[in-house]
Amino acid sequence: METIVTQKSYVIPKAVPEPLGNYRAVVLRNGIGFVSGQFPIIDGRLAFQGRVGQELSVAQGREAAAACALNVLGQLQKALGEDFGRVRLARVDGYIASGPDFLDQPAVLDGASTVFVSVLGERGEHARTVFAVAQLPQRAAIELVVTFSLDASR
Amino acid sequence: METIVTQKSYVIPKAVPEPLGNYRAVVLRNGIGFVSGQFPIIDGRLAFQGRVGQELSVAQGREAAAACALNVLGQLQKALGEDFGRVRLARVDGYIASGPDFLDQPAVLDGASTVFVSVLGERGEHARTVFAVAQLPQRAAIELVVTFSLDASR
Amino acid sequence: METIVTQKSYVIPKAVPEPLGNYRAVVLRNGIGFVSGQFPIIDGRLAFQGRVGQELSVAQGREAAAACALNVLGQLQKALGEDFGRVRLARVDGYIASGPDFLDQPAVLDGASTVFVSVLGERGEHARTVFAVAQLPQRAAIELVVTFSLDASR
Repeated sequence: METIVTQKSYVIPKAVPEPLGNYRAVVLRNGIGFVSGQFPIIDGRLAFQGRVGQELSVAQGREAAAACALNVLGQLQKALGEDFGRVRLARVDGYIASGPDFLDQPAVLDGASTVFVSVLGERGEHARTVFAVAQLPQRAAIELVVTFSLDASR
Repeated sequence: METIVTQKSYVIPKAVPEPLGNYRAVVLRNGIGFVSGQFPIIDGRLAFQGRVGQELSVAQGREAAAACALNVLGQLQKALGEDFGRVRLARVDGYIASGPDFLDQPAVLDGASTVFVSVLGERGEHARTVFAVAQLPQRAAIELVVTFSLDASR
Repeated sequence: METIVTQKSYVIPKAVPEPLGNYRAVVLRNGIGFVSGQFPIIDGRLAFQGRVGQELSVAQGREAAAACALNVLGQLQKALGEDFGRVRLARVDGYIASGPDFLDQPAVLDGASTVFVSVLGERGEHARTVFAVAQLPQRAAIELVVTFSLDASR
């Protein structure tokens, strides 16, 4: 499979993080699919650590959210192969490590939503929930949890 | 569509909050539906801010939970139109902004569960998870995330 | 139904926690099922309280996660009866009450994943997300939220 470069020049990574335990990165059940929580890991390294509104700016938070979204797409492509073209997003939950006074989590999570809609078009539309958390595993800036469906055909 | 007034006099709002970013309030995929996280917004204003057990009493927390639930129902009615009658709730996740010593989150979330069961009857039955969080976007008291299904017929 | 003892000697409890409010422990909708959040309750008592990496060790956290997983299986067995054999796990969300410097939440949650895979085999495979939280209701150490599917046949 060739590297996919989208109109906005987003590159879906071919190397995506392996599960850190006894679980799968993607499962599909009765037409509904579940992607394990993804972090802003780039080239095998956790690229964004700290809290938005504290150690990280909103712009950095948006980049971190975009990195999570690209890892989601990479996991889907790796797990589904040709069926990747039948993916339709359903739900995106974004957990934003936030400084105590930071209130603009929706702007940060838009960094992920924009990637999904840019890459997948109408298939990337999703419901969304944003959370402000004090900490994430490994001090990650963001964790992204995605639910999707698989269409009967393209 | 007329305003629906239930036996318990709950009024489902016709004006519901618009998405704050690049996402949809409700999506439906292969018979399972997802509602974006809803806050205790009443008439366009975030009506309950602060932590239950600290700035807010349990009774106020229950009112906040009920307001979230009514917004969920309003979003479903707006998105689904006549198909609203085929909705069956599946899962309710309630995130309660909580003071450090507050332990009775289930009583607060019951304010939402009671609305769902009162308005939808058997169709309002759901699995539920309650969370205690230190903060929510915009200092909201509660955030409510709902998953539902759409029956083949009424 | 007899008590099920697995190869690893996990015992699925027959007495499982009742819902603490106006909701159901398990619901099934269009082939996808939802289990209400489960806590490390053993014999009716919350057996693990406190934060991992603070009051609790990683080993205790793993035991707590295993207790949550067994309660999930007990809820499924109670709710589904003979259909328990058609269960296939989909998604496991683990919320770990964590001390401020604790970073190894994945190792803790593996205590739950290992139970699921040991008891259910291939049917226990799941996507997974781990969260670090400062507090949980009743100071529980862990809360586990599971989504599953029901196969058309065994």
